Amino acid sequence: MPVKLTAPQASSLLPVRGVQLGFAEAHIRKPNRKDVLVMTLVEGSKVAGVFTLNQFCAAPVILCKDFLAQKSDIRALLVNTGCANAGTGEDGLNRARQTCEALGDLLNLQANQILPFSTGVILEPLPTDKLISGLPDAIENLKEDNWLNAAEAIMTTDIVAKGTSRRIMLDGKQITITGMSKGSGMIHPNMATMLGYIATDANVTQSALESITHYAVNKSFNCITVDGDTSTNDSLILMATNQAGNTEVTESSTSFIALRDAMTDVAIELAQAIVRDGEGATKFMTINVEGGRDEVECRKVAYAIAHSPLVKTAFFASDPNLGRILAAIGYAGVDQLDVNILKLYLGDVLVAENGGRASAYLEEQGSAVMKESEILVRVDLARGKASCTVWTCDFSYDYVKINADYRS
Amino acid sequence: MPVKLTAPQASSLLPVRGVQLGFAEAHIRKPNRKDVLVMTLVEGSKVAGVFTLNQFCAAPVILCKDFLAQKSDIRALLVNTGCANAGTGEDGLNRARQTCEALGDLLNLQANQILPFSTGVILEPLPTDKLISGLPDAIENLKEDNWLNAAEAIMTTDIVAKGTSRRIMLDGKQITITGMSKGSGMIHPNMATMLGYIATDANVTQSALESITHYAVNKSFNCITVDGDTSTNDSLILMATNQAGNTEVTESSTSFIALRDAMTDVAIELAQAIVRDGEGATKFMTINVEGGRDEVECRKVAYAIAHSPLVKTAFFASDPNLGRILAAIGYAGVDQLDVNILKLYLGDVLVAENGGRASAYLEEQGSAVMKESEILVRVDLARGKASCTVWTCDFSYDYVKINADYRS
Repeated sequence: MPVKLTAPQASSLLPVRGVQLGFAEAHIRKPNRKDVLVMTLVEGSKVAGVFTLNQFCAAPVILCKDFLAQKSDIRALLVNTGCANAGTGEDGLNRARQTCEALGDLLNLQANQILPFSTGVILEPLPTDKLISGLPDAIENLKEDNWLNAAEAIMTTDIVAKGTSRRIMLDGKQITITGMSKGSGMIHPNMATMLGYIATDANVTQSALESITHYAVNKSFNCITVDGDTSTNDSLILMATNQAGNTEVTESSTSFIALRDAMTDVAIELAQAIVRDGEGATKFMTINVEGGRDEVECRKVAYAIAHSPLVKTAFFASDPNLGRILAAIGYAGVDQLDVNILKLYLGDVLVAENGGRASAYLEEQGSAVMKESEILVRVDLARGKASCTVWTCDFSYDYVKINADYRS
Repeated sequence: MPVKLTAPQASSLLPVRGVQLGFAEAHIRKPNRKDVLVMTLVEGSKVAGVFTLNQFCAAPVILCKDFLAQKSDIRALLVNTGCANAGTGEDGLNRARQTCEALGDLLNLQANQILPFSTGVILEPLPTDKLISGLPDAIENLKEDNWLNAAEAIMTTDIVAKGTSRRIMLDGKQITITGMSKGSGMIHPNMATMLGYIATDANVTQSALESITHYAVNKSFNCITVDGDTSTNDSLILMATNQAGNTEVTESSTSFIALRDAMTDVAIELAQAIVRDGEGATKFMTINVEGGRDEVECRKVAYAIAHSPLVKTAFFASDPNLGRILAAIGYAGVDQLDVNILKLYLGDVLVAENGGRASAYLEEQGSAVMKESEILVRVDLARGKASCTVWTCDFSYDYVKINADYRS
């Protein structure tokens, strides 16, 4: 079961004026599940995105980057599950383009006005016929009040749909922000395909939207994945439909910070939801590393802890085997680390200092914290002022089961 | 069950003249198991070692490096299981030194003539009283023909004892080489404590023995662990007792290569045995990466594949989900990698080329290879002449079980 995460109520996902969503069951991999999603954007919408840095990036990622670079007035998004269309070479690009053309024909758009996304098994050809045959159904049920169905349509090994909304006021106008995400292979986040879509009806410049996108991803999705080490298909898209009637938000507007922070707040909730729904997860861990010389070394330490299977299995077992955390700190690759001055805390409990176990520490204290479903691990490197936060989950039998059975 | 690995017969582990081994049950962590090993070396023996680069290295590792640097005529080794004496600060150093002093008193040696080694749980104090109380028993049963008992005494989560012997002729003299190793946490080799001890009765200079040590570790134990990313306690020790009567081997002797290669051969078998006995392992995988610009980038790719939990669970499931291997290659961090020219083979089967699945590849071919218990993964980066080999194992339910239960 996901860690303190339940699917949102349909009524809690607020429609965003100018965004319509429609789904279909196209039998791409399995019958009787929503596996195609179409999103349309009203004329005048702005779109910005960030994508995986994996060199084996998927065909749809290549097209998305190309179409966004063309500034081609993006008016629709097309998402399929069941097949990642990655590791598919030139043929994969052709197939992705073909699905954009097919949707363009139905919506009276050019292919390059449609951003394609795929998630699922790598190295298999995209079944374009099935996908395209599902498009009329998806267009048939396009509507603004369809976010929960949409969030369900993009799930793969996710147990629950992930979505959330915020409302803020800008210039006396009500602004709605709604987002959804998918992804659950978070035990080693490098390999998880994460898709995130966040829409607002605000009026905002392209430049300001791009600035918000980069800010938001660094505070959210990039805290659950290693810079540069991402899956073949990871994508985060921000959309703004200019339907709210507010004064255009630029990077120097007084309203910029409010919009940026609200959209970032949605991104953080969506990113954390992916960890909470991590494959087989039973615990949600926040790793705070502070007192570093720079953020890079803080992230090295946080990810060494977050990635260690030995640490993760100890958390699964509620076993305060904290030496495994020290070992991870020791091999994180921090230059000239002085292990005698750093401090390790589990929740509020000081566990290690002076290169060893803290003298006042009692194992019962560690055990009490480890039994919680939300656990804070805090490392103070005591050599500077930089810090970072990373979220991760534990490592259970079910992780192996889910990933050993994924294609069967 | 380990992958094609059974415990050696006692008779197959040949005594090395000048090396005596004795064990004890000291109840350091659990009753009724051998957990203390004493090895003694005849006067005039040479000793060389390589150790973990983990910055949280254990107290015994610090002492070993110190004593070897002092060139203090090492005459005995003391190994305990059940407690790693790591993350134990100044107190840990005192305790390790105390055990060397106690053994020195019994053997009439100085403390710095004894190399200490510990493996087991981190962050807990070494129970010196228990360890020291076991020493008389261990000394009582010191004998040359005791390698299997010794190999059993250093086991932790290992399922089978690991040891092997070789005999070669140098200058018409018979030379014996016998080694043993422990370690099984190989799913993420960074964290496994690996101990290896290889002894020969050959006459060899200190300099030549050190040269052999570095050569051997790079061809063996360093192919199952990442450079610089090692556990708190990893240690490999080579010993030469000068009892065989051969002419002294120097780095320029004609016999140097023969001795080096035979000792390296033992090291490779011991290193591979650790992977074959990997926690929960059901498959033994050899990852060959060739055609790289340099060895560093070959190792990046090999380790990205070898460390990926998604790849490892697919191997456990005998599922030719090879896209996961492509994804790992893609995020390995190789600069300017051209995914369209590299080739991926599973055994002899060409799986991927031109950025996607090879046109002649049939899933049945991949499935047939994946059902084997020994699997070769080969990547040709097609951009240079460098290559590397890494050994690893798959990732099963039992890995989680073993590591979640390790302290209970």
